Amino acid sequence: MRWAVLLAGGSGTRFWPLSTPENPKQLLPLAGNGSTAEEAVERLTGLIPRERVLVVTGLALADRMRDRLKLPAANILVEPRAASTGPALIWATAEVAARDPDAEVLSLHADWAVGDATAFRRTAETALETARRFDRLVTVGVVPSRPETGYGYIVPGAALDAVSRTVARFSEKPDAATALDLMAAGALWNSGLFAWTAARLLAETKIHTPEVAPHLARLVEHDVAGFFAAVTPVSIDVGLLERSGAVAVVPGAFAWDDIGTWQALSRVRPKDPFGNVIVGSAVLHESQDCVVWADRDTVVLSGVEDLVVVQANGRILVMPTERASAMKTLLDALPPAVREVHG
Amino acid sequence: MRWAVLLAGGSGTRFWPLSTPENPKQLLPLAGNGSTAEEAVERLTGLIPRERVLVVTGLALADRMRDRLKLPAANILVEPRAASTGPALIWATAEVAARDPDAEVLSLHADWAVGDATAFRRTAETALETARRFDRLVTVGVVPSRPETGYGYIVPGAALDAVSRTVARFSEKPDAATALDLMAAGALWNSGLFAWTAARLLAETKIHTPEVAPHLARLVEHDVAGFFAAVTPVSIDVGLLERSGAVAVVPGAFAWDDIGTWQALSRVRPKDPFGNVIVGSAVLHESQDCVVWADRDTVVLSGVEDLVVVQANGRILVMPTERASAMKTLLDALPPAVREVHG
Repeated sequence: MRWAVLLAGGSGTRFWPLSTPENPKQLLPLAGNGSTAEEAVERLTGLIPRERVLVVTGLALADRMRDRLKLPAANILVEPRAASTGPALIWATAEVAARDPDAEVLSLHADWAVGDATAFRRTAETALETARRFDRLVTVGVVPSRPETGYGYIVPGAALDAVSRTVARFSEKPDAATALDLMAAGALWNSGLFAWTAARLLAETKIHTPEVAPHLARLVEHDVAGFFAAVTPVSIDVGLLERSGAVAVVPGAFAWDDIGTWQALSRVRPKDPFGNVIVGSAVLHESQDCVVWADRDTVVLSGVEDLVVVQANGRILVMPTERASAMKTLLDALPPAVREVHG
Repeated sequence: MRWAVLLAGGSGTRFWPLSTPENPKQLLPLAGNGSTAEEAVERLTGLIPRERVLVVTGLALADRMRDRLKLPAANILVEPRAASTGPALIWATAEVAARDPDAEVLSLHADWAVGDATAFRRTAETALETARRFDRLVTVGVVPSRPETGYGYIVPGAALDAVSRTVARFSEKPDAATALDLMAAGALWNSGLFAWTAARLLAETKIHTPEVAPHLARLVEHDVAGFFAAVTPVSIDVGLLERSGAVAVVPGAFAWDDIGTWQALSRVRPKDPFGNVIVGSAVLHESQDCVVWADRDTVVLSGVEDLVVVQANGRILVMPTERASAMKTLLDALPPAVREVHG
């Protein structure tokens, strides 16, 4: 049967002051009316039922995830510690295998905006079929819409069938010139949407991932804490996909965004005729290309451009959109009492 | 005896969204910890006692003015309608004359920031003495600190004594080049700080101010409503001072500002080393020459300059400081439900 593993850990700071430890990015309605995590589960409707959706998250968010995503308690996998995507996905896949040894697994993240859910499902289905037919670890490569330097790229290799290709190589976060070259050469964004059979994933792990493989026995003994204490954190890309020869790529032609910064809202939300994105109550007068999020007051902008203006959780943030990607620098400069937000 | 008349009517919009019909500019702590109206009365300490300070204001503000300024109820003069400064000051002076026929009157506004209260009092005293000695209507001319185009200028004429001069002419709101010329020629700002004897003011009115003079009899009959219904609105400058020959100017060498816009706060309040003025809770990171007023949340600015950021009464305003003088244009563009604030 088909299962999904939704990675929903972490509590990033890129959406400060809206995101908080209690309501991190994946629980915020960044792209639409529901949170990105809720939308991620909804998006699987017709492909994978809720009872076969597992969520990997942290202890602080476990109850909230279960409630918000309307999932069985047994489907919430609580990571004892954050150890990157490798251990999380290998553990979740082992968990699926324990319930369903012949399972196919679709792996995705809880913080994406996807423009076309139908195309997404069709691509995910193709990825699952490819994973089964060719017994490979499949990564979905999203057709790039811009030479983004913040993403990883996949350079496809030989054709496996009409849509699937082997992977020639991965290129992580290229510089701007390289990103343009990659895009021109038909490289695809490494979205983090993966498909594999549980059996193949675990077999490949044993061959290629010494950071994790020696500790798999702990999972058989239901010693999740011991497993996480023993593994070396490593991403699934670096720890497995880039090492394994049994990899394939399926192209995905849907709008996809990991909503990495406040500025990303201007890609994933409708804009007014002047390029402004407004969430909450706001009037923009002779202003353009701004991102406004107001959780309480009415924001009035006049004569400004390229600004992010956010009111959330007792803070009001105003900065040029170009600074949205340097949020950590700003937060490091703030007094703790100002930086720490809850809500 | 010396009396003061404080003009404290009006509910301007230049400090939107902080100023409201209930709390207009003169009741806001724009320049310091107290409201400008409270500071105006405090500033007279030692020169004119509270029991001889009259306040001209509107019905909506009368109770609040009395409470905030700690004045006897009889000292609050409620204008039946706003009719500019001419009728207001002539009425208030007539009211003073009824209580004290030989009175000297100092006339001032409730929305000023004054940098040096001692110099202010000394100049006011000189103005009152000049008004008595030369039996003239005296206007205090503030020594300009910049070629401001928003103020009126006074060109002094012949010397009356060591400090007092006649007035050669008035120049209202000159263009930038003319303002520079005026400043270079020793012209002074027409501050609105006036001194006269009640008798001379009323005598000059009868000669020069047909908009008001025919209706003075109404005041003798205590028919203030009839007086205001009958007069033609006119400023004291246009309606009397610019017409009368019995005028003098006394220079005032103190920092004076009528706090006309949000931008003015950067002149009347202390700035941080980067030229920012902050009222309320705010952290400014790599930002300069901004004016921040926060009534509830903590404002965080990063990488911006020359911005006004105001949170007040359920609104958050963000605009370049240069737009602060065009507030009316902005407010006209706002939906009434957004424009109307109370607090």
